[in-house]
Amino acid sequence: MSMEDVVERARRIVRPTRLEERALRRIVEKALSAARREISGVAGALDVSLEGSAAKNTWIRGRAEADIFIHFDPGISREELEKIIVDLGSRIVESLGGEPMIMYADHPYVEGIVNGVTVDVVACYRVEPPNWMSATDRTPYHTRYVLSKLKPDQEDEVRLLKGFMKACGVYGAEIKIEGFSGYLTELLILYYGDFLSAVREISCWKPPIVIDLERYYESEERALEAFPDSPLIVVDPVDRSRNAAAAVSLTRLSELILASRIFLKKPSIRFFKPIDPAPRIKELKGLIRDRSILYVSFKLDSPRPRDVLWGELKRSEQGIRRSLESLGFTVYRSGSWTDERRECLMIFELDGVELPRHHLHKGPPVYLRSADEFLEKWSRAAVGPWIEGDRLYVLRRREETAAHRLLRERVRSGQVSISKGLVEPIKRSRISADARSLLKLASRNDDLRRFLAEFLAARPPFLRK
Amino acid sequence: MSMEDVVERARRIVRPTRLEERALRRIVEKALSAARREISGVAGALDVSLEGSAAKNTWIRGRAEADIFIHFDPGISREELEKIIVDLGSRIVESLGGEPMIMYADHPYVEGIVNGVTVDVVACYRVEPPNWMSATDRTPYHTRYVLSKLKPDQEDEVRLLKGFMKACGVYGAEIKIEGFSGYLTELLILYYGDFLSAVREISCWKPPIVIDLERYYESEERALEAFPDSPLIVVDPVDRSRNAAAAVSLTRLSELILASRIFLKKPSIRFFKPIDPAPRIKELKGLIRDRSILYVSFKLDSPRPRDVLWGELKRSEQGIRRSLESLGFTVYRSGSWTDERRECLMIFELDGVELPRHHLHKGPPVYLRSADEFLEKWSRAAVGPWIEGDRLYVLRRREETAAHRLLRERVRSGQVSISKGLVEPIKRSRISADARSLLKLASRNDDLRRFLAEFLAARPPFLRK
Repeated sequence: MSMEDVVERARRIVRPTRLEERALRRIVEKALSAARREISGVAGALDVSLEGSAAKNTWIRGRAEADIFIHFDPGISREELEKIIVDLGSRIVESLGGEPMIMYADHPYVEGIVNGVTVDVVACYRVEPPNWMSATDRTPYHTRYVLSKLKPDQEDEVRLLKGFMKACGVYGAEIKIEGFSGYLTELLILYYGDFLSAVREISCWKPPIVIDLERYYESEERALEAFPDSPLIVVDPVDRSRNAAAAVSLTRLSELILASRIFLKKPSIRFFKPIDPAPRIKELKGLIRDRSILYVSFKLDSPRPRDVLWGELKRSEQGIRRSLESLGFTVYRSGSWTDERRECLMIFELDGVELPRHHLHKGPPVYLRSADEFLEKWSRAAVGPWIEGDRLYVLRRREETAAHRLLRERVRSGQVSISKGLVEPIKRSRISADARSLLKLASRNDDLRRFLAEFLAARPPFLRK
Repeated sequence: MSMEDVVERARRIVRPTRLEERALRRIVEKALSAARREISGVAGALDVSLEGSAAKNTWIRGRAEADIFIHFDPGISREELEKIIVDLGSRIVESLGGEPMIMYADHPYVEGIVNGVTVDVVACYRVEPPNWMSATDRTPYHTRYVLSKLKPDQEDEVRLLKGFMKACGVYGAEIKIEGFSGYLTELLILYYGDFLSAVREISCWKPPIVIDLERYYESEERALEAFPDSPLIVVDPVDRSRNAAAAVSLTRLSELILASRIFLKKPSIRFFKPIDPAPRIKELKGLIRDRSILYVSFKLDSPRPRDVLWGELKRSEQGIRRSLESLGFTVYRSGSWTDERRECLMIFELDGVELPRHHLHKGPPVYLRSADEFLEKWSRAAVGPWIEGDRLYVLRRREETAAHRLLRERVRSGQVSISKGLVEPIKRSRISADARSLLKLASRNDDLRRFLAEFLAARPPFLRK
């Protein structure tokens, strides 16, 4: 298929239907008037507005969201604001016929599903840049900036880029993904003009990359100095001290670069298709054969905000990874999964699930005084001490060689760096290298099966056959 | 036991008995007169002499050796000399009632056992230093030097040092041992005065060590420059350009340093006792349990001089070791054994006798052109390709993971660095990681059993309990 055909078909995939658009508009209208009604008489609640992709007409099909913002007087304390927004948000969602759920990000907000559309009621302070008081205060400025710059024919270009990123697994600034936010895709279209130009430029990126639409920095060097550890720097047009791409990890960035290159070489509609259905257990069995897989599965006692949980999972995954490495295993890869309620799983692919029974322990050169201590200490070593070159050596015998038991012992004795909120759940976790028990876990959960299939195949979506 | 008592008892161990001394003297007399008789009329054979420990009265009990040297005119070609010495030596040994064996070192010599005494008939050229024509030409000068310097009461001090070194496993300059020659021990006693002083000094050595009895070099630095890679430099008093300790490896030197320190701390007669008897198979079974041992056993078609064979074995052992390392194994230790006739064995202790089924293969960063080639090449990888950071990775699957089969294949295809003289025998060798078959081999040979016990215990004699 030619590139033109592919992009034309992709456009039809990402563009909302008339029906969907009308449904969203209707709900937005209702939500805004409900919000206006509810804030009247609430001290400090100044105004309401629509933000996000609905406001900018850049949402992609099937992902319609109404982000209703309530603007507060800066005189209101954070504590009061949090109390008021939970109360206001709940009443607004209820008045629309939805069931309010309290969600937690930087500060709480209220979510409800109304006729298939996600309605979020979010608080922000009405402040002038750069006097931000909370993380959501920039959002109205973001909306205003994009609306003032984005030409109507660029809306679908944003949608194409979002759809491409989504199918490639790099869309989403949340900690789970560490990828590209909606706002960031809009800035990229503003900068490069259209989807194909953006993809062409991205395919040639070599990190670190600097994009400074408003030329706040006099040179790339200055911007790099301001954001020293970011592989991708997109200076926020509404806040010169903020990198709008701060959430993007080097891995996600690299995936996008590679995906762009492959797409340009061989355009295909699969770069816009949603991911595969959950695989069957039989397929997983084939994938896991001969692999050295260790897993840690556990249940949470208490729910927590998604981003908090994902942060804890990722940090703890790294802690366990380091612990396994220090035990003597090589960890090829690792991953985390959660249903974002109670069930959690961390998974590690190792060079083997057993350590060698003996390992080399190198001593000092014979002519150092410490050689005598070494001899004393290791006089009952399993093998040795012997001398090679000028040094002493012994082989130490391990009583325990199984990865899952070694890790369990380290977890039990508190030697593994685990996020505070997961210490207790992981102490009670199942740590195992048994593929059968893992597949049994997965048999009960489609999403876990999908995660496992992706982990075991170890190919980003755009490299799958 | 006090140091005095230990040394006194050691003296009795190392000093030859009256009987042994008389037997040696008698054989020396006979051998010398036989030699004188035989050379008369042989063109170019100028003189005969007694050399070695018998001449210097420094041999240790049970190791009586008569080194009969035939001095040749430098006008005689090397080829002629070799022919003549084989002929002369054989007749001399026969006339003493021994059975002549032709031995090979730098040039051939003839050996025979007569009444329990080893008689060696060796050729040398009569030349003035430093116009050496063959490796044995220095020997008469060594004898003369030691005789002119060594006081009679130092003879037993040499014997003590030899006995100590022998029991510690560091005595012998041959390639098998890479240790201390008899001449070297004599030089050490000349330098330090007596056995205890020598051991005290040695216990404080920190290589590199320089000993220059005749002060041929103006400073230690100059001597170090002249012999840059030697951990121990003992400038030969009869040849300033020769290191009399060139054969000593860093390992043997370090063992002697450590043995000296331990002996001084806790004097014991076991530092002069010969090594243990051959262990029984049952003990070997206990030692080998749980270990990852690979062995290569083979038979030679053709005999060869000891030093040649040991050189080939040690170089090939290192070649196989490097090959195993490059395959992905960790080689903790290795060793070689031979009965010095046909049977040979090389043995390797590994971290495991199986490689992991999968191994990590790191690709280029995504932004390099070579990333495309990597993707092409590894599109059918067992696991991946995936991206971490800015790089591509795959896991490669190994079809073969067993050390012995992997090594066999490498040997077969000529990828292992093996001494030329062992290539064919090793191609036909048994390469195995099966302990039972190894023990079966050892059950037929005391010396191999002893070697295996020492290899598996991996302690030098002076560290054994």
